[in-house]
Amino acid sequence: MSIIEDSKEIFENIKKVRPVMHNISNIVTANDCANITLACGGSPTMADDPDEVEDITAVCNGFVLNMGNTGGFMVETMLRAGKKSNEVNHPTVLDPVGAGAAKRRNQVLETLLNEIKFSVIRGNVSEIKFAGSKTSGAKGVDAAEGDKVTEENLDEMIAYAKNISEKLGSVIAMSGAIDIVADKNTAYVIRNGHSMMSDITGTGCMLSSVVGVFISANPDNILKATAVALSAYRLAGELAYKKTMEMDGYTSTLRMNLIDYMGKMNAEMFQGGAKIEVR
Amino acid sequence: MSIIEDSKEIFENIKKVRPVMHNISNIVTANDCANITLACGGSPTMADDPDEVEDITAVCNGFVLNMGNTGGFMVETMLRAGKKSNEVNHPTVLDPVGAGAAKRRNQVLETLLNEIKFSVIRGNVSEIKFAGSKTSGAKGVDAAEGDKVTEENLDEMIAYAKNISEKLGSVIAMSGAIDIVADKNTAYVIRNGHSMMSDITGTGCMLSSVVGVFISANPDNILKATAVALSAYRLAGELAYKKTMEMDGYTSTLRMNLIDYMGKMNAEMFQGGAKIEVR
Amino acid sequence: MSIIEDSKEIFENIKKVRPVMHNISNIVTANDCANITLACGGSPTMADDPDEVEDITAVCNGFVLNMGNTGGFMVETMLRAGKKSNEVNHPTVLDPVGAGAAKRRNQVLETLLNEIKFSVIRGNVSEIKFAGSKTSGAKGVDAAEGDKVTEENLDEMIAYAKNISEKLGSVIAMSGAIDIVADKNTAYVIRNGHSMMSDITGTGCMLSSVVGVFISANPDNILKATAVALSAYRLAGELAYKKTMEMDGYTSTLRMNLIDYMGKMNAEMFQGGAKIEVR
Repeated sequence: MSIIEDSKEIFENIKKVRPVMHNISNIVTANDCANITLACGGSPTMADDPDEVEDITAVCNGFVLNMGNTGGFMVETMLRAGKKSNEVNHPTVLDPVGAGAAKRRNQVLETLLNEIKFSVIRGNVSEIKFAGSKTSGAKGVDAAEGDKVTEENLDEMIAYAKNISEKLGSVIAMSGAIDIVADKNTAYVIRNGHSMMSDITGTGCMLSSVVGVFISANPDNILKATAVALSAYRLAGELAYKKTMEMDGYTSTLRMNLIDYMGKMNAEMFQGGAKIEVR
Repeated sequence: MSIIEDSKEIFENIKKVRPVMHNISNIVTANDCANITLACGGSPTMADDPDEVEDITAVCNGFVLNMGNTGGFMVETMLRAGKKSNEVNHPTVLDPVGAGAAKRRNQVLETLLNEIKFSVIRGNVSEIKFAGSKTSGAKGVDAAEGDKVTEENLDEMIAYAKNISEKLGSVIAMSGAIDIVADKNTAYVIRNGHSMMSDITGTGCMLSSVVGVFISANPDNILKATAVALSAYRLAGELAYKKTMEMDGYTSTLRMNLIDYMGKMNAEMFQGGAKIEVR
Repeated sequence: MSIIEDSKEIFENIKKVRPVMHNISNIVTANDCANITLACGGSPTMADDPDEVEDITAVCNGFVLNMGNTGGFMVETMLRAGKKSNEVNHPTVLDPVGAGAAKRRNQVLETLLNEIKFSVIRGNVSEIKFAGSKTSGAKGVDAAEGDKVTEENLDEMIAYAKNISEKLGSVIAMSGAIDIVADKNTAYVIRNGHSMMSDITGTGCMLSSVVGVFISANPDNILKATAVALSAYRLAGELAYKKTMEMDGYTSTLRMNLIDYMGKMNAEMFQGGAKIEVR
């Protein structure tokens, strides 16, 4: 079956399971991540205390690890939650926020990759490059200028994503103007979205939370569920942009409309707008 | 006087006092809690440093303790702020976020209940059950499926709330599709609200902050002020839902409209829509 | 050239540089600060880990230090980031949130003022008074009743701001119904804005982030860039208020529209609405 045909069941499973999601988040985007988790059909829980995250992870359906705040006890929190998530076989997402931007953050990333097995790693091109090859040109949390997927370098970036996926043993979701979702054999190229999405903080963090919901309700179909998640999210961004212009709004209105459209999204709306190519 | 007649004075007192509220919050909902505190007529202050919370609590008019983040020094922060609030006789609200979800969190709750006297405990049914009887079926921060107030179990839940109130010495505000606010003698049953409110993160946290404002401006009328706070908040949700549908919006638009309607709320609007039954 | 003529270049420089901004923020307003940084043309990065903030500060274009959360390792984080920012000569903003409200916070402020050189200190009148003279009547994070700039005390407050600027060696941005931006010789008095802005949490925090973007793209013109930032932000508030009323919204709608209008703001819109007097 094609991924578009499969999407019907992927959306139905979210409705059926209503996955409870443990998210380790950060002070900047925690609220948006919780709200978009609810919007796309999950129930968010966000604990930070290392002494409780094992209990909480265990009763959820999946786990999203956003490494945006690494101060104090947070790395211990991440490790205990991640290991428990592996132990109970939950779908587990890593968002390597800001990978490449600081030595300390890179060490944390290395520790996480060594200690925890991730079903999906979702990042911008700079973050994925750093996770995969320890190189990137990132300054801060946005992808570096040179780190992008274009029609010109698409073949190369697809091969790179498949390669990293094999190396790390995780589905790779590399997001940007063009998104690539890949395991070692198959890549989905997604051409949905609107450029104004990058003028909202946390569009990456929110996307990782969305991926968490999709794969936790579809643990046997992780590659396709991730691709559908990215395409649905970007499509919600397109629809949100259109409504934002009608409201004479701008980036903050777009943020609201983006979350709204993730809430309205269903298989039918998805199938009407998804632009996914298999490679 | 009936609670509806009383409400006029309750709203007037908020305008008169404009209570300065110390909130210990969490990284997910702090911003929403601060904004709704402002909207309903308070002035929010949110400190986390254990070495300053006594000073800050002392100069405020009331204190709301949300136990959403218990990592690191936060329990010390909670205890120092709570004890100071008791010492200076300020109205004090506990929101036992996620009670029942993890052993560590339950221990924190027990410590808080032992060390601090709360004017009001505001939680969903699972959280209140855990605070009162150490039992609940909660997974994460949402109430468990079986933990709800319905027309069928209403008598039983009212008796339960009165019982817990007597046991803990606090007004109990148990929120859900039907809300119950009770002390040991009297219960108010509130039938306002819209189901979509539960698709926004932090509707519980925000409600606890609203209760804080209402009781801190009405310290001699805590039971009724709490019931008015819950009914007003749910009514704001009803009005917000109606406007959201007119705007063709969804959950994120609802969040905005909810805060807006708490800002517009006054005795007249309240009296036109409140559905409160005394039991 | 007048500041209004200068503003064209100030806005152009932001477009040219697109400054990457390191913000140390707090759990209440971090998301809003990041979004408004993006809206006015910067790229936000918010690290909290003391072991990475030097690396991250160094690759940015400027640094905004909001002292809203001082618990645990945060003071170390602030000091390491601030010293690095000074070392690499980046424009550096201090927001002394809640100065005067607690002994501990005042000690933190004193340490920051002793150890870090700030290009701009942006606060409400109470906070600036405390930073400058160790006196204020503040309760919590809002300015005390008596601490405001009015047409009656304007001469006195201008002299005070110039005096504090000379004493502390920083441009002073004192915000309220009337804003004053001053160095030791020159003051700009800004009469833009709408009173409803103070019913949104974080309007001060967001403004400090906006100042950061403006001065980091205009490091050779810090006094004027700060005055333009304040006037532009207040003007965005006026336009946002107007649209909010048209939408039949209230404070939460205003927050959204405020960020939207900072995104739409440009030299032309600014020159059509700025009300800045040189003194």
